[in-house]
Amino acid sequence: MSFKNSLTEKRPRLTLVGAGPGDHELITVKGAKALKDATVILYDALIDPKIFEYASPRVIRRFVGKRCGLHTYSQEEINEMIVSYALTYGHVVRLKGGDPFVFGRGYEELAYAGSFGIETDVIPGVTSATSLPALKKIPLTTRGLNESFWVLTGTTADRKISNDIFLAAQTNATVVILMGLKKLGEIAGIYKEAGKKDLPVAVIVNGSLPNEQFIRGTISDIQLKISEYDIHGPALILIGEAVGLQLDKDSRYIENIKAQFA
Amino acid sequence: MSFKNSLTEKRPRLTLVGAGPGDHELITVKGAKALKDATVILYDALIDPKIFEYASPRVIRRFVGKRCGLHTYSQEEINEMIVSYALTYGHVVRLKGGDPFVFGRGYEELAYAGSFGIETDVIPGVTSATSLPALKKIPLTTRGLNESFWVLTGTTADRKISNDIFLAAQTNATVVILMGLKKLGEIAGIYKEAGKKDLPVAVIVNGSLPNEQFIRGTISDIQLKISEYDIHGPALILIGEAVGLQLDKDSRYIENIKAQFA
Repeated sequence: MSFKNSLTEKRPRLTLVGAGPGDHELITVKGAKALKDATVILYDALIDPKIFEYASPRVIRRFVGKRCGLHTYSQEEINEMIVSYALTYGHVVRLKGGDPFVFGRGYEELAYAGSFGIETDVIPGVTSATSLPALKKIPLTTRGLNESFWVLTGTTADRKISNDIFLAAQTNATVVILMGLKKLGEIAGIYKEAGKKDLPVAVIVNGSLPNEQFIRGTISDIQLKISEYDIHGPALILIGEAVGLQLDKDSRYIENIKAQFA
Repeated sequence: MSFKNSLTEKRPRLTLVGAGPGDHELITVKGAKALKDATVILYDALIDPKIFEYASPRVIRRFVGKRCGLHTYSQEEINEMIVSYALTYGHVVRLKGGDPFVFGRGYEELAYAGSFGIETDVIPGVTSATSLPALKKIPLTTRGLNESFWVLTGTTADRKISNDIFLAAQTNATVVILMGLKKLGEIAGIYKEAGKKDLPVAVIVNGSLPNEQFIRGTISDIQLKISEYDIHGPALILIGEAVGLQLDKDSRYIENIKAQFA
């Protein structure tokens, strides 16, 4: 019989785990197992604390989150923490909201750990980009209407709006924008110039959590509607004809948003 | 004490569940719970049978899959099966590969069940579009290089190539194509015309499963490389500069594909 357990075993390794969009049960079975095995969990903002029910009660937890401008740790500091915790304690789980490879800088963390010879694994997560529309019964594509969806970040590395938005506004792709709420006015302006003022828009804040907020409208009125809400938390913006085909909670067709505002 | 259990309780309901990209442990905790509670599971091709370990041994399982041209059941027949099983047996889980709302026609199934007053829920899944690149340590976006990824279906409702491909080839978005392997020659042609013959391409077949196949190259040579493989199963195509930044299994930087073929 061995006295070794996951808390004494010191082989340094890093597992990047996607926590899913919010609801702690939307982590994968494999992700939950990794939490159970972890000696250290480094986690972001936007992680529901209920998710730690899957971890060992003795696990070392460190919050390394960033929230809208307020950076607790720089990316470089997080990279270094991963390495030093792995070398000291063994199995580090880096728990990130959504999927760790969707605008998550998970790639950089893997490469940094890899450069120290630390064993690395990735356990994908449910990305908010696709799951939050599904939970709201909003199709991203609909046969005969469109054939693609385009996922963009609203805030680029240089804090400007992405040029991709201008092109996206020309297509019939459903456009999914993460981290874009502060740019919504600018984005709506681009769509208006493309002659699409009536295009349906939906905004989901704190998706899949009890404090979820859901706002829908069109390119023309979404800004006004948003201003009526007190919004704190991550927002997902959806733009496109398919967004107007949302089903209601009983999966009945809702009158098209266009018709509602005609 | 009640003798009722999930197999005698008859309240008709439908839960759409995303099974994830292949590996049965990439289903969500919530999805696994729904399988356990289900009286009937209607499942697609591309579902690893190991996933039924999460279900009751008494569950009624029905394969309703489609495979490349060979349709076991039409969508209309599947819709009707959902309704008749729910009315007869209670809780039907409709288990779909990846996420049920990503090109999955889950929307149509929900709406059909809803029209019969059947209670409906959606449990999102890990979509292959984002998870298979993550598992291969391929970034979809990289700060400073690009700011978006665009997910398309290679086979549209009318079996033609999507017009979106022509536009996508003009952008620096990483392009993710599902169900597009038969169109790969045509797609590569479009990129060549856009002057992008050296752009990195990766193809993942049966991603996350033991029989996974992985092929990488450039727009110029990917067709030739693919022809050396005997490919059966669903394929995901990734195109873009970021694809060239794949890390190796130890998360070390691999020489850029471009350099390899220069």
